[in-house]
Amino acid sequence: MIGYQFMGKVHSHAYRDLPFFFDKGARPVLQAIAGRNEAAVKQAAEKMGWASYATDWRRLIERDDIDVIDIVTPNSMHAEMAIAAAEAGKHVIMEKPLAMTVEQAERIAEAVKKNNVVHMICHNYRFAPAVQFAKKLIQDGVLGRLYHFRGHYLQDFIIDPAFPLVWRLDKEVSGSGALGDIAVHSIDLARFLIGDIHEVVAMMETFIKERPVGEMDGGLRAKADGKQMGKVTVDDAVALLARFDNGIMGTFEATRFAAGNRNKNKFEINGEKGSIRWDLENMNILEIYLTEDTPGLQGFRAINCTEEVHPYANAYWPPGHIIGYEHTFIHLIYEFLQGVMSNKSPQPNFEDGVQNQKIMAAIEASTQSKRWVTINE
Amino acid sequence: MIGYQFMGKVHSHAYRDLPFFFDKGARPVLQAIAGRNEAAVKQAAEKMGWASYATDWRRLIERDDIDVIDIVTPNSMHAEMAIAAAEAGKHVIMEKPLAMTVEQAERIAEAVKKNNVVHMICHNYRFAPAVQFAKKLIQDGVLGRLYHFRGHYLQDFIIDPAFPLVWRLDKEVSGSGALGDIAVHSIDLARFLIGDIHEVVAMMETFIKERPVGEMDGGLRAKADGKQMGKVTVDDAVALLARFDNGIMGTFEATRFAAGNRNKNKFEINGEKGSIRWDLENMNILEIYLTEDTPGLQGFRAINCTEEVHPYANAYWPPGHIIGYEHTFIHLIYEFLQGVMSNKSPQPNFEDGVQNQKIMAAIEASTQSKRWVTINE
Amino acid sequence: MIGYQFMGKVHSHAYRDLPFFFDKGARPVLQAIAGRNEAAVKQAAEKMGWASYATDWRRLIERDDIDVIDIVTPNSMHAEMAIAAAEAGKHVIMEKPLAMTVEQAERIAEAVKKNNVVHMICHNYRFAPAVQFAKKLIQDGVLGRLYHFRGHYLQDFIIDPAFPLVWRLDKEVSGSGALGDIAVHSIDLARFLIGDIHEVVAMMETFIKERPVGEMDGGLRAKADGKQMGKVTVDDAVALLARFDNGIMGTFEATRFAAGNRNKNKFEINGEKGSIRWDLENMNILEIYLTEDTPGLQGFRAINCTEEVHPYANAYWPPGHIIGYEHTFIHLIYEFLQGVMSNKSPQPNFEDGVQNQKIMAAIEASTQSKRWVTINE
Amino acid sequence: MIGYQFMGKVHSHAYRDLPFFFDKGARPVLQAIAGRNEAAVKQAAEKMGWASYATDWRRLIERDDIDVIDIVTPNSMHAEMAIAAAEAGKHVIMEKPLAMTVEQAERIAEAVKKNNVVHMICHNYRFAPAVQFAKKLIQDGVLGRLYHFRGHYLQDFIIDPAFPLVWRLDKEVSGSGALGDIAVHSIDLARFLIGDIHEVVAMMETFIKERPVGEMDGGLRAKADGKQMGKVTVDDAVALLARFDNGIMGTFEATRFAAGNRNKNKFEINGEKGSIRWDLENMNILEIYLTEDTPGLQGFRAINCTEEVHPYANAYWPPGHIIGYEHTFIHLIYEFLQGVMSNKSPQPNFEDGVQNQKIMAAIEASTQSKRWVTINE
Repeated sequence: MIGYQFMGKVHSHAYRDLPFFFDKGARPVLQAIAGRNEAAVKQAAEKMGWASYATDWRRLIERDDIDVIDIVTPNSMHAEMAIAAAEAGKHVIMEKPLAMTVEQAERIAEAVKKNNVVHMICHNYRFAPAVQFAKKLIQDGVLGRLYHFRGHYLQDFIIDPAFPLVWRLDKEVSGSGALGDIAVHSIDLARFLIGDIHEVVAMMETFIKERPVGEMDGGLRAKADGKQMGKVTVDDAVALLARFDNGIMGTFEATRFAAGNRNKNKFEINGEKGSIRWDLENMNILEIYLTEDTPGLQGFRAINCTEEVHPYANAYWPPGHIIGYEHTFIHLIYEFLQGVMSNKSPQPNFEDGVQNQKIMAAIEASTQSKRWVTINE
Repeated sequence: MIGYQFMGKVHSHAYRDLPFFFDKGARPVLQAIAGRNEAAVKQAAEKMGWASYATDWRRLIERDDIDVIDIVTPNSMHAEMAIAAAEAGKHVIMEKPLAMTVEQAERIAEAVKKNNVVHMICHNYRFAPAVQFAKKLIQDGVLGRLYHFRGHYLQDFIIDPAFPLVWRLDKEVSGSGALGDIAVHSIDLARFLIGDIHEVVAMMETFIKERPVGEMDGGLRAKADGKQMGKVTVDDAVALLARFDNGIMGTFEATRFAAGNRNKNKFEINGEKGSIRWDLENMNILEIYLTEDTPGLQGFRAINCTEEVHPYANAYWPPGHIIGYEHTFIHLIYEFLQGVMSNKSPQPNFEDGVQNQKIMAAIEASTQSKRWVTINE
Repeated sequence: MIGYQFMGKVHSHAYRDLPFFFDKGARPVLQAIAGRNEAAVKQAAEKMGWASYATDWRRLIERDDIDVIDIVTPNSMHAEMAIAAAEAGKHVIMEKPLAMTVEQAERIAEAVKKNNVVHMICHNYRFAPAVQFAKKLIQDGVLGRLYHFRGHYLQDFIIDPAFPLVWRLDKEVSGSGALGDIAVHSIDLARFLIGDIHEVVAMMETFIKERPVGEMDGGLRAKADGKQMGKVTVDDAVALLARFDNGIMGTFEATRFAAGNRNKNKFEINGEKGSIRWDLENMNILEIYLTEDTPGLQGFRAINCTEEVHPYANAYWPPGHIIGYEHTFIHLIYEFLQGVMSNKSPQPNFEDGVQNQKIMAAIEASTQSKRWVTINE
Repeated sequence: MIGYQFMGKVHSHAYRDLPFFFDKGARPVLQAIAGRNEAAVKQAAEKMGWASYATDWRRLIERDDIDVIDIVTPNSMHAEMAIAAAEAGKHVIMEKPLAMTVEQAERIAEAVKKNNVVHMICHNYRFAPAVQFAKKLIQDGVLGRLYHFRGHYLQDFIIDPAFPLVWRLDKEVSGSGALGDIAVHSIDLARFLIGDIHEVVAMMETFIKERPVGEMDGGLRAKADGKQMGKVTVDDAVALLARFDNGIMGTFEATRFAAGNRNKNKFEINGEKGSIRWDLENMNILEIYLTEDTPGLQGFRAINCTEEVHPYANAYWPPGHIIGYEHTFIHLIYEFLQGVMSNKSPQPNFEDGVQNQKIMAAIEASTQSKRWVTINE
């Protein structure tokens, strides 16, 4: 694994916890972790259970006893690392977004394809049991013809102007702000549940233009280093209208300036036979409305997706005993390892990553041009 | 009052019920009601307590014992009626939207201005106690600088393709569909709470293109007359992005195809010091989050706006005893009658109606041009 | 009507508003109101629309042009007034609880029976559309065999020790505290929905033993007159276990010391085929769970009881447009007037009042004896 | 560890997952697991990561390389095992309830005391961050003087009469039904948050008297073996009133017959300065109401207890990323291991287990005698 901060912790935990619940699949061995700061990466290796560490990520790619490279670094390093890993014949799992640009993303996708390695991009929210169940319901036609997708990803962690200028606010490192960090999750959920997006029109805003220079510690607690101010070069918020290939209307909004919304990743889908709603902050619940219910008894049902019939739920506890955020990654990595064993890249793979990247590029282009932009021209 | 269907019932009730709760203001006298169908208007007069009726609305305007004309007819008749009333020196209260076009709306506004009559447009949701309280909080700076307005008006009453082609689906009579019927309420709430909109980009859709010919009965129960099909000429759904004059981001969506959402008129406002949320279906509750709350004790509060300090609440019952939809109209008409007595048009007045109409026109223009459209060019 | 405070206002409004929504039934005429304070009763008559007033309630009973006596006075006066009205051949509608003691209650019930007048006791919560619908579902066997009734009535309006010693806290006037004011509503709902109670065991508490002397004004705003303290002679809270005639387990709790619960009258019923939940603070919603729903799609549904099929809802607005507290009284009085016209006392009538009084007496006896007490021995 | 079913899985997971999140404490080594069925225990050892297994639990107690015995067997075996472990000088962690009788419980407590071993009983719900935070708030006086504790534990997993007669329904093995399985959790939470209980009055019911013979598989999926019927010897539901030592009123209800409530372990506490509410099914949320909030802005706050200041939350993810059921055990076992290292039994320890057992005994006695029963006579 290359990187060891927030996502490094989540992935490490998933590798370790996975075999307990899913004993039929592959058992990952945590061989090595890489990071530039030796003291920090050494501590991370010890704390998170990696057998060795390196300060140069290329050392991991050279090793014969490593089959999989997991890339959890800031976005600006994705392309070089992923391509190097693929060319070394390693299977690659990587955090989103895939790259800084569509061109980079396509080169990455080409590399994994040419080298015939298994690849997956970490849109983990697809793997909440409630979301997987929603997908099944839609596929089974339970909602009938679809009319609307409405996706919001609302956070507030940088709402304080004193929050420092961490790498996520530096376009050179992160590529974008709310767009690539959270909006892309909503877009990926929409593509998973609904299908591809044909065109978008968008707006992006940066509410706080300057912030004190600083960084985050390992626990995602940010601290400013001093009084020096720097320019915020990414978007604080993004909103868009979308038309899907099949005519469905989509609306999306992502912001880090929605006070009180810690991690409100939610969506609603409306179809001719019913609707579904989901909210990450209460992620075990899927709300569903069915038009075919008896008149007088119609209403949204709050389903606790911890029953035997709900995807992945059977690996855990009896009904009503909820699971948490970390399990979305356990499920994702379970699917990835199944893919490694069968030499087949599970979705969302790097082609999904390319498509999501194209949509992000269209959003930025539309914000510039103030017109609708078609995704695949 | 001209018209006697759904809105006629709501207004009639408000005139009658108002003096019981608000005894300080004017006491309306229900002199006459007009409608084209004699049997129906006669029955409506009896049922709703109007002293007389007429089949020609001009008879009402001619009467000296009538000071106020209330227009609750379909939109296509608004301009002629409102202008005639104003020219006869009657105060005018009228259902939204103001007109079929901006040009019509401006002529109406000019007529009331020239004739110096009091005027008001019925955006009743401004007058829910929770919404009035939200306005007060924003004005007092409780939310600080504002970042986002997010408005949704979701209904499902025409989701069944067998629902007939009532007048609300006929552009010649209604002007538009979800746009003028419900989206305009969200837009008006946004203007009330946030301020004016600078520019918009929008999309509109008609999901069901043809429907059986038919009409609604007085209780808003629709029935198809037979097997003849007609073309739906209005939008089923509309979505838009907006930039407010003060830089705030706005997103709006209105649809009649959101299964399970009977009357989900809701909004969320995010500011630097907090957020508020409201939902018409549970209209007594205002949710508020304050960033200044003690860390660890931060969370959205669910305030039941039935306390002494909440606007209008003191006229009713002790805390926790909720009021309903009809009271939004009682409050609106109370303000109108106060305006009549002081010869000052309360907001939202016809100038608000013109501004809302311009935004609707911009939404339609943007849908056509696929570009952002500025409201006041 | 005798009395003009909180309940006087609610009843007066209901008489006035009722004919607008329910035009088929009787049209009440507001002939006269009685109260001891001439200035206050005169003002109440004017404000609430009563044609005349009297300072001696007996004047109303003597009048030939009055058919119905509505008693909304404190409980200590119920017996004398109700018996006098019945003996004068007046139909009687009266606030709960019926009396101060079972003996009084039985004398009242005997008087209305002997004089063959129509009678009704104002347990208004039976008449929320959601509660009526719950009754229908239970009667239709939708929940199957019943196991549990769980009723809570939580308020907080006297939680401040500085809240004055109003008549509701004086046993000589009110008979009891939380027991007769709110617990009896839960008990009545249970009897309505489930059936009769066989035995109870209970506890009652008075948390604040002394309070400043004072009274309430007409708007249920209390104010202390000075610094003099008086003894609280009623219960602040009551809790009980109950066994219904048919073996169902019941638990009840009522308190005025549940901070943040303004008017939380709620219940849950569990049966072999499903459960229902209701909460007065969001009174239009009925939550229902059905065990026969497809596995994976099982969850509580939130039904907005504003559909054509929901009791009383058809008199109002389209689905999703909610009604409020006052409508429970409109429905109750509608049923009462229907009863007057057909000379048949609708439930809950004074026999229900007697039965509820017996349960209250058993609760007090059980609190004393610290044993289970059977209701009808 | 002795036992390997539902609780065996939960505990095993906690031992394995704990060091990842809490790296400062002891690192448990999973030495051996015991169970009577060799094939099953062997499989459990492999699946859950235990280094060895035994079919006779005494083998574990004899081993010198084992310091801690974890007992997750049915209740009837607790006493013998715990006493043997203590006498062998092993630290003991054991599932609730402590024993079958108060006498047994006291012998267990005596054994651990005499042998000076660390002991803990697994009331895991104390260790949800929201519950720990509630405890802190109460201790800090945020709620002021307390008035009410209201605890419900509602489940529905045996509501189907075809659900088999598993060991939990056999008094010889389980001691009791809803009482010892779930009510005791509510009672323990009350003792943790409020203090000791002085006296109780209770009722218990068995709704379904006979069931088909059968058992549960490892995943808590029950299946009936055939058509043979057996007698249910435990309670399906229990309800009680309680008076705490400090005069606080308590009400409790626990049932496995509340359709739709999968695992609804919830409580509400009302105090003079505020109230708190918690519900296991959405366990990250603590609802709090504070009377000192500004009038007009008073309402229950929904706090997502994932902030840095919330107990244990700092070990996990950023705010808004929820944790699940299993983490309550990770926290409990973390505290136990801290206790082992410092040779100090953390609460809830076996003395708490004895006290809880006494309350259970009083509940059963009260159900028999139909009177209030004092706990410590």
